[in-house]
Amino acid sequence: MTAKRLRKGPLAHVRVIFKGAAVIRSLRRRFLASVLALAAGLAFGSPALAQSDPLPSWNDGSAKEAIVSFVRATTTQGSPRFVPPAERIATFDNDGTLWSEQPLYFQLLFALDRVKALAPQHPEWKTEEPFASLLKGDVSKALAGGEKAIVEIIMATHAGMTTEQFEQIVKDWVATAKHPKTGRLFTQMVYQPMLEVLAYLRANGFKTFIVSGGGIEFMRPWTERVYGIPPEQVVGSSIKTKYEMRGGKPVLVRLPEIDFIDDKTGKPVGINSHIGRRPVAAFGNSDGDRQMLEWTQGGGGARLMMLVHHDDAAREWAYGPKSKIGTFSDSLMAEANKQGWLVISMKNDWKRIFAFER
Amino acid sequence: MTAKRLRKGPLAHVRVIFKGAAVIRSLRRRFLASVLALAAGLAFGSPALAQSDPLPSWNDGSAKEAIVSFVRATTTQGSPRFVPPAERIATFDNDGTLWSEQPLYFQLLFALDRVKALAPQHPEWKTEEPFASLLKGDVSKALAGGEKAIVEIIMATHAGMTTEQFEQIVKDWVATAKHPKTGRLFTQMVYQPMLEVLAYLRANGFKTFIVSGGGIEFMRPWTERVYGIPPEQVVGSSIKTKYEMRGGKPVLVRLPEIDFIDDKTGKPVGINSHIGRRPVAAFGNSDGDRQMLEWTQGGGGARLMMLVHHDDAAREWAYGPKSKIGTFSDSLMAEANKQGWLVISMKNDWKRIFAFER
Repeated sequence: MTAKRLRKGPLAHVRVIFKGAAVIRSLRRRFLASVLALAAGLAFGSPALAQSDPLPSWNDGSAKEAIVSFVRATTTQGSPRFVPPAERIATFDNDGTLWSEQPLYFQLLFALDRVKALAPQHPEWKTEEPFASLLKGDVSKALAGGEKAIVEIIMATHAGMTTEQFEQIVKDWVATAKHPKTGRLFTQMVYQPMLEVLAYLRANGFKTFIVSGGGIEFMRPWTERVYGIPPEQVVGSSIKTKYEMRGGKPVLVRLPEIDFIDDKTGKPVGINSHIGRRPVAAFGNSDGDRQMLEWTQGGGGARLMMLVHHDDAAREWAYGPKSKIGTFSDSLMAEANKQGWLVISMKNDWKRIFAFER
Repeated sequence: MTAKRLRKGPLAHVRVIFKGAAVIRSLRRRFLASVLALAAGLAFGSPALAQSDPLPSWNDGSAKEAIVSFVRATTTQGSPRFVPPAERIATFDNDGTLWSEQPLYFQLLFALDRVKALAPQHPEWKTEEPFASLLKGDVSKALAGGEKAIVEIIMATHAGMTTEQFEQIVKDWVATAKHPKTGRLFTQMVYQPMLEVLAYLRANGFKTFIVSGGGIEFMRPWTERVYGIPPEQVVGSSIKTKYEMRGGKPVLVRLPEIDFIDDKTGKPVGINSHIGRRPVAAFGNSDGDRQMLEWTQGGGGARLMMLVHHDDAAREWAYGPKSKIGTFSDSLMAEANKQGWLVISMKNDWKRIFAFER
């Protein structure tokens, strides 16, 4: 309150008194809040976290509660479910778990953009499928060739350059390309509630890893900035690379040859190869994550297995069990129920989906 | 000094006075040391390190100086060679760089022990090479078959079990097996000066990785305890694994099929696959590390490339350029000189080689 306002008229005194009472009330509230926070801190051993909600974009409910109680149990010394810091490994699928994956996996949209950009150097694509259909804008026809067509598109757009050149191409694309429906950058289409889970786990000594069917080199250029996950904590599918000298400078050349597919049974294999420890927490959203969750649960002791369920047609997408992208089959739902894996309802559990909704 | 000692006789007073003077001298020394440390700290920006030698097992010389000045330059804010913490990646070969590798790579000695242990289950080995010679104790004859014989021995001893079973086999072996020459546990035959480099780099925000031609799963069970390097920071050669359910429990089965050889040109490939960033420091000891050092140097900016040279026949081994184990060829020495890679003389640069020498 400024001196000017105090001189405004006969009510100035009342205002000052009122303000004084408000200050006292505010101080009393803060004191009480401190005492409560301290008490909570003494009870749960984490005063810093007790003071504020680590998951503000989550509605109260069993999903949020499961995450918070898992973190408390695994980080409280003396808890029967305590996990030593070195073993606090949490793995996250990417497409459909950390960011959206509709109308097509974003990496596939990237590949389609690359086909257009590279077309002038490939006159033969005018007649060769799947490129001819793609260049005519008929994505469905191009992808009708199934996996073979997709592999051809990936190889034509992801191989034949050095790792540094590819990194730059990805950086340029994520900096400029827009999602066809929302008009947002793809890196804005990440789930705010999951960013909070990542940060909450890390604040409690967990190392967070991506374990995705997507390309490892497609994710690494931006995961640190967007998710706080550094390149060495990204596991994904890969093509082979070859070391060679070019003009006296060492390079790694990306070859049109699949090295590893980090999906389904490949996920535990990739986890073992890159991390060498079994996760204690794993988050997925589709049939491709089933084995990662099984492998996580198989370790025994404190475990958290969760599946993001796309059931929000209004704010994101509602897939249904037959969706080709991010299939969450009835059989996966049955296994989740049987094994006690928690299904996150985007519609009911998430207060907000994207940060840009704010 | 106890009350009892004070009452010991006519010299008690002198002792007390002498002790008092010593205390004053000690305090004065400590005060001066603090002032000097503070001054050094102000000059170099790292007061904690200025107080004590981070590399006490290194003799003064160009090798030690190169490490210390690299760490100072890369961690001093405002230095033209400053490296942001996230990019402080240092990679270390294992055999011959962090621990010994004579008379044979320790993993090969492990494999030979396993052949003996498994022989009762393999009556056919009595007549089949390379196993027959091995079981008769003729290692040279067994290994005369070259790479093919080695691969056969590795596959017979490293595959056919789950990852958890193999981990336990390795743990049991490193806990009990003794080196044929020194009689020490193999995990005691690690180089004290290199343990100090690892700790010094980590204290300055570097992430330390092993990048070894040795088996990734052979190293992971003990690298955290011995080197402070967790499983997720170990890169090595691997065989394929397969996910399956056994009695309702998920397992990864180790298959007798090579997945990746992390040696020579494979080292930059392995670094890119597992770390996804280029190291700023790399330590090796043989021709197998040449490409890792080239790749490290190729990144430009502040870089440290070092090679451990086995030239100490009295305290460890002196290989000479024609050694089959840990070959440090004349051509590697020429490249080191040309590129400015620092060669560490075990004989001259290391005050102590193993901790048990103390």
